[in-house]
Amino acid sequence: MAAVADKKLTGLVAATFTPLTPQGEVNLSQIGPYIDYLTQKQGVKNIFVNGTAGESMSFTVAERKMLAEEWCKKAKGIMDHVIVHVGCLSLKDSQELARHAAEIKADAIAIMAPFFLRPKNVAALRKFLQEVASAAPSMPFYYYHIPRITNVNLPVVDLLEDIENDIPSFSGVKFSASDAMDLGLCINNSKPQWTVLFGVDEELLSGLAMGAQGAIGSTYNYLGCHINKLLAAFEKNNLAEARRIQYNLQELLRYAKKYGFDLGVNKQLMVELSGLPLGPPRPPVIQCPPENAQSIVQKFHSLFSESS
Amino acid sequence: MAAVADKKLTGLVAATFTPLTPQGEVNLSQIGPYIDYLTQKQGVKNIFVNGTAGESMSFTVAERKMLAEEWCKKAKGIMDHVIVHVGCLSLKDSQELARHAAEIKADAIAIMAPFFLRPKNVAALRKFLQEVASAAPSMPFYYYHIPRITNVNLPVVDLLEDIENDIPSFSGVKFSASDAMDLGLCINNSKPQWTVLFGVDEELLSGLAMGAQGAIGSTYNYLGCHINKLLAAFEKNNLAEARRIQYNLQELLRYAKKYGFDLGVNKQLMVELSGLPLGPPRPPVIQCPPENAQSIVQKFHSLFSESS
Amino acid sequence: MAAVADKKLTGLVAATFTPLTPQGEVNLSQIGPYIDYLTQKQGVKNIFVNGTAGESMSFTVAERKMLAEEWCKKAKGIMDHVIVHVGCLSLKDSQELARHAAEIKADAIAIMAPFFLRPKNVAALRKFLQEVASAAPSMPFYYYHIPRITNVNLPVVDLLEDIENDIPSFSGVKFSASDAMDLGLCINNSKPQWTVLFGVDEELLSGLAMGAQGAIGSTYNYLGCHINKLLAAFEKNNLAEARRIQYNLQELLRYAKKYGFDLGVNKQLMVELSGLPLGPPRPPVIQCPPENAQSIVQKFHSLFSESS
Amino acid sequence: MAAVADKKLTGLVAATFTPLTPQGEVNLSQIGPYIDYLTQKQGVKNIFVNGTAGESMSFTVAERKMLAEEWCKKAKGIMDHVIVHVGCLSLKDSQELARHAAEIKADAIAIMAPFFLRPKNVAALRKFLQEVASAAPSMPFYYYHIPRITNVNLPVVDLLEDIENDIPSFSGVKFSASDAMDLGLCINNSKPQWTVLFGVDEELLSGLAMGAQGAIGSTYNYLGCHINKLLAAFEKNNLAEARRIQYNLQELLRYAKKYGFDLGVNKQLMVELSGLPLGPPRPPVIQCPPENAQSIVQKFHSLFSESS
Repeated sequence: MAAVADKKLTGLVAATFTPLTPQGEVNLSQIGPYIDYLTQKQGVKNIFVNGTAGESMSFTVAERKMLAEEWCKKAKGIMDHVIVHVGCLSLKDSQELARHAAEIKADAIAIMAPFFLRPKNVAALRKFLQEVASAAPSMPFYYYHIPRITNVNLPVVDLLEDIENDIPSFSGVKFSASDAMDLGLCINNSKPQWTVLFGVDEELLSGLAMGAQGAIGSTYNYLGCHINKLLAAFEKNNLAEARRIQYNLQELLRYAKKYGFDLGVNKQLMVELSGLPLGPPRPPVIQCPPENAQSIVQKFHSLFSESS
Repeated sequence: MAAVADKKLTGLVAATFTPLTPQGEVNLSQIGPYIDYLTQKQGVKNIFVNGTAGESMSFTVAERKMLAEEWCKKAKGIMDHVIVHVGCLSLKDSQELARHAAEIKADAIAIMAPFFLRPKNVAALRKFLQEVASAAPSMPFYYYHIPRITNVNLPVVDLLEDIENDIPSFSGVKFSASDAMDLGLCINNSKPQWTVLFGVDEELLSGLAMGAQGAIGSTYNYLGCHINKLLAAFEKNNLAEARRIQYNLQELLRYAKKYGFDLGVNKQLMVELSGLPLGPPRPPVIQCPPENAQSIVQKFHSLFSESS
Repeated sequence: MAAVADKKLTGLVAATFTPLTPQGEVNLSQIGPYIDYLTQKQGVKNIFVNGTAGESMSFTVAERKMLAEEWCKKAKGIMDHVIVHVGCLSLKDSQELARHAAEIKADAIAIMAPFFLRPKNVAALRKFLQEVASAAPSMPFYYYHIPRITNVNLPVVDLLEDIENDIPSFSGVKFSASDAMDLGLCINNSKPQWTVLFGVDEELLSGLAMGAQGAIGSTYNYLGCHINKLLAAFEKNNLAEARRIQYNLQELLRYAKKYGFDLGVNKQLMVELSGLPLGPPRPPVIQCPPENAQSIVQKFHSLFSESS
Repeated sequence: MAAVADKKLTGLVAATFTPLTPQGEVNLSQIGPYIDYLTQKQGVKNIFVNGTAGESMSFTVAERKMLAEEWCKKAKGIMDHVIVHVGCLSLKDSQELARHAAEIKADAIAIMAPFFLRPKNVAALRKFLQEVASAAPSMPFYYYHIPRITNVNLPVVDLLEDIENDIPSFSGVKFSASDAMDLGLCINNSKPQWTVLFGVDEELLSGLAMGAQGAIGSTYNYLGCHINKLLAAFEKNNLAEARRIQYNLQELLRYAKKYGFDLGVNKQLMVELSGLPLGPPRPPVIQCPPENAQSIVQKFHSLFSESS
């Protein structure tokens, strides 16, 4: 696996959940089977680990290192890309995770804006990102824009302006927001080697139309094969088919919202649909009652039956 | 009601500004020239009058009637559709405007959610809409979803459930929000005779990809011919061309935001680009300084030059 | 203008509900009994009519005139102050109501910020207020700050700066917001003849401590006698007693929130507690089921028993 | 210093800034002088360390331990109370800091709600708090309510219900929010041994009136002696004097807002006013230009002159 430019990241990326034991401890033993499931059952070749679905900041720095290392080790030769999210509220912690990601030969790092004391303008945000990126200058660097978590809603297009001067390893954006104008402007102002991945699963078609080069999200853990069909249909200008799949995903989430869809519900859905024992979420996320997950699973099967 | 089905509304709709005299009084004399401009210069065949761009609620009921009447009169035989927005905070006022719209033979009425004392759930909203619709039962009825004005952000898809039972004249939604999941669900749960028009100009491609059947907005007053090209390109699966135009619109608005883009700026842009003397906005909107509008006009010409 | 200074408004003001018939029409016949109830049973000598609790903007201009006229007529010689809220989304409507308030010899007018197209800065807001005030220059003029309705959250202290130059009749603020810094600054920057009335019932003690000269709110319709005790206790530095009453009001509202406390619930509480047949609210507000109101009434009696 | 009950915390608490070297590293050498300044110049006898003003989550766990240890060591015998904030996004990190706080004999610990994946209800929040508290069961435990940081805005009064059953060491709330109803309800529903400290400096009088037993905030680092006068005046029912000081603080912050008042500005103000070399803030907070701080310092002196 040579230079960055050699393997530009596009297509589908699963933002993985973190396997835990029933007692809530990190469970490295399930990472191998998880990767097998993604590649063999879902056709997913890229993963984003220790992100939001992965409950990253609910873990210690030491736990995040163990996890990242195992994901990289097991994915080697099987996955195309492993992006490690190194975002922390503490700059030093993020720098440490960035250096570690380089050591374990991750394919890229990503970071969301710090959100304890929030950057007051684009310059403050860029300075923070730069200090993280410079700790691992060889790592392709993605900005992870997710204002519903961070409440940092500075226009990403402003951040991108000449960012390669400050961050030579800059490689793109994980754009997890509904603001399709900012998304379009990012794409219109991107360098050719950058990738803008769209991160709102239930609005994927919007992002693709606006020009996003890939899809990244948590529901792709269990919907990967369907979303690959959506991407293929979109590529072939078969919008009717792409919409059919998109609407099904929307109907699924609409149904799941009746059960308070959150990460606890989402992770339990993955457990039920994949059969992988991924354990409960960490507090403060609470586990989804199995009967709720079962009800959503039934809806899933009615929406995504064999023939679709 | 044959008439309604006979001319299903699709394609481009301009949400018109309201012509005022320099003193801020309603200026009916400019409505004829305005319609000529839209049809001849912009290729726009449908209008939405007394809406947000039209500053509707800044006018008295009597003024709104005069305006609606003149728009309908002058558009007759020239425009395909004139939708009159009859939304008011007072149910009785809305009913009066709805009855009046029927009298003057508008093609349809639309109404946004009342937002002084906001409906606390979907049932309360539907009841209000029903009472307006029943005042003019022959008028095709559109729900105008615009939460950035109303702060009423109840899922539209929930509103649509069996709405034809309560509102037989229900005909569709003017969806002026970025929530592409709710948009998709609305389309997926629509009756065939309904139309979902997307109303966020700078995110139009998102809405089209998700399945919206038309575009409605204020920038189409001066960008109609370009947006018609976007719609045609999208129709022919020429996404690259559609995106080029969409990005240009986004760059224009990004630039205009430096001048505090609001209705005052927007209306002044129309004045400068169309040459129509539409006057100032009504208070509390303030007039855009001409030098600011001129600067945005220059940006407009650099983005949308002859050759594009 | 001697008259204004002669009777500076302080103390308790009830923001009245609007009596309707069971069919939802304006019911002028209940205004007399309502005033008797306020003065005789609650010790309330000032009223704010056609405000938020009064569902003002849910009525037509003609209805608001009828109501204002009847309130002024029946209150004459009984009440100390009748403030008529003339806020509308349309400047012309507000001007008409302001002129009318002068004709019917209301004691003052008040107006909230227009909130369809919101003023983009303090200057735009002041201009709007000025145009309303100038339609009835002899009427003492209050700015009604209620951002939870208007989403206009410009600092009131900035509005007050030299406002007497633009609005000679300016007389004070109905401050219905929790921002105690802006409240304090308003009071610290007030002219002696102005009154700042605090309008968040459940936070009244906060406002009094910060220097507010009066209390204005809807719960005072049925809690007036208790709140008069609170005001008296505060005046005598008996904070323990003032807090006891304040906490009881808070406990009541906490309990009522379980039933979705809104204007519909609030009005029904007044009906139950006063015995006045005030009718249902206007749509889009929905009527509170009687059993819910009854449950809150029981809580009321357990909190505010005879002995308190 | 014996049992918890022996020294109930009331009065004034400074939420300290964290001393850094010019290069941005933790600077333990300034903690002693800082404590001397607070006690000798400001009359402050209680401190809250590693909180929001202290940029806690911008540091690593190891740095936070070093800081907490030095604060406790230097404060011993000089300060009455040292509360260590142990809030982290990771439960394990918070538990580790809680245990450490017990080892270094802090007087109490406090924790804000985790805000990466936010607790979806009161039960989830309480479970998280319980797991932290149980790691250091002998430490008096405070909940730190600060929704403007955490966006966790669950009613604190609901959290308090029988919380002593789950958290026997529960000792009170640092209430840093403007919601005076929730504040009043917390106080009305408190056990006698609990303390509710109010944490919005510019609204302090509001909180005191509502019944808060103390004041905790960052401006008290440089305004302690003035706020002690405010507290004393309030205690003696001298509201006029208490308001005078409160208004001055509000005028100071109003002025500082023109310079984008944030933690960077706040810390620099402390540097200028105390003469302590506390260094710059950590990224993503940016340092306040000295000329801006100087301008605010001048305003400070004009508001809080010798004679006041």
